[in-house]
Amino acid sequence: MGLKKADIILTDIDYILTMDKDLTEYKNADIVIKDGKIVDIGEGKKNEYYGKTIVCRNKIAIPGMINTHTHAAMTLLRGYGSDNPLKVWLEEYIWPAEGKFVSYEFVRDGTEIAVYEMLRTGTTTFVDMYFYENAVADVIKKVGIRGVLSTGILDFPTPGAKTPDEGIQKTVDFIEEYKNNAFVIPAIGPHAPYTCSPDTLKKAYSVAEKYDVVYHIHIAETEFEVKTVKEKYGKTPVEHLDSIGVLSERTLAAHMVYPSENEIDILSEKGVKVAHCPESNLKLASGIAPVPDMIQKGVTVGIGTDGTASNDNLDIIGEISTAAKLHKGFKKDPTVLNAKEALLMATRWGAQAIRMEDKIGTIEKGKFADIVLIDIKDPHLNPLYDPYTQIVYSSTGFDVDTVLVGGEIKVLNKEVIPLDKDYLLDKARYWKEKVDQIRK
Amino acid sequence: MGLKKADIILTDIDYILTMDKDLTEYKNADIVIKDGKIVDIGEGKKNEYYGKTIVCRNKIAIPGMINTHTHAAMTLLRGYGSDNPLKVWLEEYIWPAEGKFVSYEFVRDGTEIAVYEMLRTGTTTFVDMYFYENAVADVIKKVGIRGVLSTGILDFPTPGAKTPDEGIQKTVDFIEEYKNNAFVIPAIGPHAPYTCSPDTLKKAYSVAEKYDVVYHIHIAETEFEVKTVKEKYGKTPVEHLDSIGVLSERTLAAHMVYPSENEIDILSEKGVKVAHCPESNLKLASGIAPVPDMIQKGVTVGIGTDGTASNDNLDIIGEISTAAKLHKGFKKDPTVLNAKEALLMATRWGAQAIRMEDKIGTIEKGKFADIVLIDIKDPHLNPLYDPYTQIVYSSTGFDVDTVLVGGEIKVLNKEVIPLDKDYLLDKARYWKEKVDQIRK
Repeated sequence: MGLKKADIILTDIDYILTMDKDLTEYKNADIVIKDGKIVDIGEGKKNEYYGKTIVCRNKIAIPGMINTHTHAAMTLLRGYGSDNPLKVWLEEYIWPAEGKFVSYEFVRDGTEIAVYEMLRTGTTTFVDMYFYENAVADVIKKVGIRGVLSTGILDFPTPGAKTPDEGIQKTVDFIEEYKNNAFVIPAIGPHAPYTCSPDTLKKAYSVAEKYDVVYHIHIAETEFEVKTVKEKYGKTPVEHLDSIGVLSERTLAAHMVYPSENEIDILSEKGVKVAHCPESNLKLASGIAPVPDMIQKGVTVGIGTDGTASNDNLDIIGEISTAAKLHKGFKKDPTVLNAKEALLMATRWGAQAIRMEDKIGTIEKGKFADIVLIDIKDPHLNPLYDPYTQIVYSSTGFDVDTVLVGGEIKVLNKEVIPLDKDYLLDKARYWKEKVDQIRK
Repeated sequence: MGLKKADIILTDIDYILTMDKDLTEYKNADIVIKDGKIVDIGEGKKNEYYGKTIVCRNKIAIPGMINTHTHAAMTLLRGYGSDNPLKVWLEEYIWPAEGKFVSYEFVRDGTEIAVYEMLRTGTTTFVDMYFYENAVADVIKKVGIRGVLSTGILDFPTPGAKTPDEGIQKTVDFIEEYKNNAFVIPAIGPHAPYTCSPDTLKKAYSVAEKYDVVYHIHIAETEFEVKTVKEKYGKTPVEHLDSIGVLSERTLAAHMVYPSENEIDILSEKGVKVAHCPESNLKLASGIAPVPDMIQKGVTVGIGTDGTASNDNLDIIGEISTAAKLHKGFKKDPTVLNAKEALLMATRWGAQAIRMEDKIGTIEKGKFADIVLIDIKDPHLNPLYDPYTQIVYSSTGFDVDTVLVGGEIKVLNKEVIPLDKDYLLDKARYWKEKVDQIRK
C-alpha cells in the first residue's frame, strides 16, 4: 500500500470550487496532478500520493479561466484614443496605428504583454481574433497558455491578407500546422456579417465544418451593424447568418448586444455560443446585451474582455464582476446572474463556448490541470461568508496567487514565471514611442 | 542660498495629476511636504529642499481619494446574503445580524478592516453613516485617515438611539467633541425621507446649520422610496425635502438614482451634492442614476462605494471605472463621463461634495498632503498613452503603492503601515463565526 506517484500535489486548499455540473465543492482538500492532468481531488488525498507539493492554505481553487473574445495584440494600443467618439477613435487613432504598425513583431510583442496580464489575473485560455496569428502561436509555444486563434477575415485588404480568400487559405494552412495541438487551437475568424459577404461567410463556414473548428465571429455588436445588415440583406444579423447556414454549435458569436427575441430563439435552437463583453460594450457605448434572457433560453454565454484598446484591461474577474452587477441593475432584479453563474461564464460555460468542455473549464479528474488559486489572506476578502460571492464581488484578478496550465506552474506567489516584466515594459515603451509619432 | 527644510520630498514622480481647476499636470517632478501640508510642487523642486526623500519613479501621483458614501463597519457583513431578493437580504440577513451584533466592538472591528482596505486602495477620506460613530472616531485617531462621520438618525429605534431626538443629541455631543479636528469631521446623518419625519429632518437640518456640518442623507435610492414618499407627502423625495427646507450646499445626497428633470434643477439651484454609488445601485438592482445629466446641469457629484454588504468592496478606482463605463453604455455615448471627470469624482468633486475643497481633493500648495502614488511599473498598465485613462480603465486600487494622509506615510510599497493584517483577519473570522450562528 505504498504512495502513488504524482507530478504536483496542491494541498490544504481552503475551498475547491470545481464548477462541475453539480457545482461540487471541497473544503481543506487537495488536487493531485499527473502528466498535465488532474488525477485526484478530495480531502486527505495528499496522504495517498508523493510528488512536488505546494501548500495552498488560505486559497480558493477555481478552474483556469477562459477569455472567450479578445484581440490580444491590441494591448499595444491600450487606452489609445479613449473617450473619443467611435468614429474619431477608429479613424484617427486605431486604424492609422494598425495600418502603419501591425506586423509579426507588433503582434508578438503585444501578445506577450497581454499574456503576462492574462496569466497574472488567472486566464489560462483565450480566444483571439487578429492578424499574424502565427506570432500569437509562437508566443503561446514559448509561454504555455492556451489560445483559440483565428485570423480576422474581411472583404477588404487587411494587415493579414489582401483578399478574403487569402485569409481563408492562411487559416487552412494554420489549421493544418496546429491540428491536435493542446495549446495552439486553430479557429476560423470571419470578422462580422457587415464586413464579410455571404460568400466569404459560407466559405469560412465550410472550413469550420471540414476541420471541426470554432467559427469565431462578431455579431450584433452595435445598432449601426444591425441597421447596415438590415439595409443590405433585409434581415437582422442573426436571421441573415441563419439564412446562409453559418449558425451551429461551432459558431462563437462575440458581443451579441442586439439580438431580437426571435434571434435569441434561433441562437438557442442552433446551439450558437455567445462571448459576452460587457466592459467593451459599455465603454464603446455599444449597449447592454440581454444576457439573462439568453441564459434563460438556454444559450451558452461565456465572458470576454475584447481587446484592451476598448476595455482597457484583460482581468476576467473584473469582467464577470461587471457583468454580474450590470445585469442586476439593468433588469432591476438582484437575483439575476448570481455569483455562481458569473463564475460559470468564466469557467465551464466558457469551455462549452469553445467546445472544449471535455478538456478544460472545471476541476475534474481527467481534465487538463488548468487551475487558478486565489489568495484570500487579505482584509479586503474577509470576512468570507461565501467563496463565489467573494471572488465575483470583492476580488480582482490581482488576488490570483498561483496559476497552472496543463500542470505547469505559470504564476507563483503572484509572480509570472515564463515572462520577464522589465523586458515587456521596454517593449511597451518602444511601441508607444512609435505609435505616438503618428499624431505628431 | 541654502536648502530649505521640508518634512518629506516625493521626487521623480512620472506624472503628477493635480486635479486642480486647470487640471495642471507635471512630468518627472517633485512634491514637497511640511507640517502635513503641500508646500511646493514642480520640476527640480527636490534641489531646493532637504528632508526625508522618497523616490517615486514609475509612479503617478493623484490627490488622496474621497469615498463620499459608505457604512464602513458593515464590512463585517461583506457579501453576507448576496444575490438574494432585497427583502430576503434585509430581513433574513442584514437586519438580524445588525440587530444582534452592532456594538462599539462590532463597529470598531468592522471599521478597522474597512480602513485597511480603503488606505490600501488609495482612499484618504471617507464619509460614513452608521451607529457607534465614536468607535469609528477611535479607529481614525489610531490610524490617521480622515472621516466625515454621521450617526444614522431614524424615526424608529436603532442600535445607536431609541428615538430620533436621542440620535440628534448624540450627534450634537459628537460635534462638540470633535469640532476643529482635521481627521474626525462630524456630520449629521438623518437616514432618508422615508425613514425620517419632516420634524426629524428639520431638527437635524437646524443642527447642520448651527454647527456648519454636512447634512448626509440617502435620497431617491429606489423606486420603492420614491413611491413611498409620494404616497405619504404627495411629492417626490427631492421636492418633498425642498419644501421642508433641508436642501442646501451642505446637503450630501447619497445615491440619487431617481431624480426627475425638475428635481435635478432643484439640486442644481440649491447646490445639493450627490454621492453616486454605481456598484451598490447595480448590485441591489436599485437602478442607474442619471449622473451625466446631473453633471451637465452643474450638480457636484462625488463617488461612493456604499457599504461592503452591498458592493462588496471599497475600491474607489474600481467604482469610478464602473461609473465611467456604465454611463457611456447607458447613454450610448462614448464621450460621456471621460477619464478626467471620473477621477474628478474621486478627488476634487468629492472634496466639494463634503465642503472640504479648501483642504483636500487636489495637489496644490497649502492643501493637506493627502497623496496617492500609483505604481505603473507593471505590464497591465502599459503602454501608457494617457495617465488618466490608465488609472480609470486599466488599474485597480491594488496598483496603489504609497499613500500619505496629512503628510504621514500610511501605505508604502503596497503595505499598510498602521494596521496589522493578521490581527484583522482574526477579527474577521471571530465575527463571521458569530454571524454564521444566526442562520444555524
